[in-house]
Amino acid sequence: MDYKKRAVELHEKYHGKIETTPKVELKTKDDLSTYYTPGVAQPCLEIKNNEDDVYKYTLKSNTVAVVSDGTAVLGLGDIGPKAAIPVMEGKSILFKEFADVNAFPICLDTTDDDEIVETIKRIAPVFGGINLEDISAPRCFEIEKRLKEEIDIPVFHDDQHGTAIVVSSALINSLKLAKKKIEDVRVVINGAGSAGIAIAKMLINIGVMDLILCDINGILDVDDINLNSAQRELAKVTNPSKIKGVLLDALTGADVFVGVSKGNLLKEEHIKAMNEKSIIFAMANPTPEVLPDDAKKWGAFIVGTGRSDFDNQINNVLAFPGIFKGALDVRASDINEEMKVACVYAIADYLEPSVDEILPSILDKGVSVEVAKAVKDAAVKSGVARI
Amino acid sequence: MDYKKRAVELHEKYHGKIETTPKVELKTKDDLSTYYTPGVAQPCLEIKNNEDDVYKYTLKSNTVAVVSDGTAVLGLGDIGPKAAIPVMEGKSILFKEFADVNAFPICLDTTDDDEIVETIKRIAPVFGGINLEDISAPRCFEIEKRLKEEIDIPVFHDDQHGTAIVVSSALINSLKLAKKKIEDVRVVINGAGSAGIAIAKMLINIGVMDLILCDINGILDVDDINLNSAQRELAKVTNPSKIKGVLLDALTGADVFVGVSKGNLLKEEHIKAMNEKSIIFAMANPTPEVLPDDAKKWGAFIVGTGRSDFDNQINNVLAFPGIFKGALDVRASDINEEMKVACVYAIADYLEPSVDEILPSILDKGVSVEVAKAVKDAAVKSGVARI
Repeated sequence: MDYKKRAVELHEKYHGKIETTPKVELKTKDDLSTYYTPGVAQPCLEIKNNEDDVYKYTLKSNTVAVVSDGTAVLGLGDIGPKAAIPVMEGKSILFKEFADVNAFPICLDTTDDDEIVETIKRIAPVFGGINLEDISAPRCFEIEKRLKEEIDIPVFHDDQHGTAIVVSSALINSLKLAKKKIEDVRVVINGAGSAGIAIAKMLINIGVMDLILCDINGILDVDDINLNSAQRELAKVTNPSKIKGVLLDALTGADVFVGVSKGNLLKEEHIKAMNEKSIIFAMANPTPEVLPDDAKKWGAFIVGTGRSDFDNQINNVLAFPGIFKGALDVRASDINEEMKVACVYAIADYLEPSVDEILPSILDKGVSVEVAKAVKDAAVKSGVARI
Repeated sequence: MDYKKRAVELHEKYHGKIETTPKVELKTKDDLSTYYTPGVAQPCLEIKNNEDDVYKYTLKSNTVAVVSDGTAVLGLGDIGPKAAIPVMEGKSILFKEFADVNAFPICLDTTDDDEIVETIKRIAPVFGGINLEDISAPRCFEIEKRLKEEIDIPVFHDDQHGTAIVVSSALINSLKLAKKKIEDVRVVINGAGSAGIAIAKMLINIGVMDLILCDINGILDVDDINLNSAQRELAKVTNPSKIKGVLLDALTGADVFVGVSKGNLLKEEHIKAMNEKSIIFAMANPTPEVLPDDAKKWGAFIVGTGRSDFDNQINNVLAFPGIFKGALDVRASDINEEMKVACVYAIADYLEPSVDEILPSILDKGVSVEVAKAVKDAAVKSGVARI
């Protein structure tokens, strides 16, 4: 069945994919006296007397806000907060399904950065973490940075870090199969928005030495006055061979293509220009930069996309549920680089990879268990755990 | 068992009384393609093209925010947003249990009225209604008024209107039993905060002619410069006999006492000063103005409290779940006076009252069904229904 039709029909059938459910019985007057008035006054007073008890008595211990302003939803762009709700609901149910973390969609009727930051700060009391989602670049960098400084619960922009983590895991396993070393390969990232920039930073962090970042105008040029500050910073520290030109120039002699850009832009000439055993992560949504069959036909060794309906799905769902679970379990004040890198290796090490299965299945709930453990340990070791 | 101990133990056991749960299966890749990427893009686009479709495809159709700033929680006062969470969670699970309405607690880390209004406006996209809760008077009046003007979903301050509704239903049924007419009785309300003021307005609305409002300083005096504007407005139109003095003066010759004040303030002399077949609604939480046994001993005909552990519990839970259900079912733009009055009579007419059972049991889920029907009809008749 056509997935578009099916999606519309089923979304209409359910009128929302998520519901709020009591965890306790409410059958007797005793139940009401316990969970509502007058009994509820007691945990309230405990929290008033010791603020940390909010984690003991309330949903804050295990609940994340999935927050978007609707400015960069999937590949659809700025569709507004209401049209973004189905995605944030989808994300919320994945949190629950894959890591037993409660998540609630918050779609903000403002695109002003200051207003977004202050709104999230004001609603933070009930949440144990903030998952930022589908906020346009470069605004998302500043919003995340400010929130990380200004609130004491973990803040994680999934489009950046979730994507960067799973791409990193995918790369580590693909390189094992290609028998190439991470410090020897050239990686070309096409797309210099929030995901592209975060992937670049993470790949450098895990050992990539030769990395080229491209956008719609070709290879990022450090002298281009149109770059935003995040792009310029990266342009300075990447592209060691100082190659100039378009995507094809970057890919000539490259080993890895990472696309977080637009559908159908990778052609035969691009892939043929790459080194042997080329690795293609074509992650544009919903249409990838190249279809896997085409890429293989043109010589690619490994092809991954963001899609469920192809092999090698590279999807954040392998990362974000377990990351937040691990962070929440130790009341981490932050999700820091150490925790993200721990997640990268937990995912990569979860399986013995093959060319058609470089990553665990996104349906395998064991992944988030391992991720949560690794993230928890990293939180403790890096000093951000609070229990 | 001691309910305080039980409440603390069970709140700790559950770490939160509410969870977010997927309504859809997420077992196969097809499921993920349908409810998440790529399928989810379709309902997003439908909403982008027709904003009203947000009700068709998302949780907005059946979800309420339970919003507090923690400034007037139960009888505990200004305990802050974190300590307020157990109450807002409690309210949220009642919405679900009694009317199958999803509700999520939002506790705001600000007590600035403008900031509260703007924050609620910004998070409104995902919600079909806003239930304001435990916000201190007189701030709550202005906050509710502004929100009702500025957002297009129903806003309802339960401490005011929920309480006013159930007290009105209780009064109607108690008067049937006392064989007194509403236009003949004197009602004394003790407590001129948000609940007292809303009860006064509603009782006038349903026909009470002789009403006296008292606060800690005694009968409200229209010339008292310490009154807030809501109190002054009411002082002008109430107390037709121009009685001055303390609570005892107001109660001398009165038929009905409504307490939304502090525990243990109603003494033998107060009740003995009232007319025969006196009706006492002692609703202070958790300790009522007078214990039912004492009140009966001193001559009261009917005694109700807010508590589950006495007869005649007068509790908002009879009203708010069904009211929001009715409003959501017709996408009402407001919860107006007509809808509230319809709720009053739906509750009162639900049973044949007796002195020990003036209202339906708060555990009877049939009440919210009848309330929702009546509220829906009233919304349609008064022109605020949108489907």
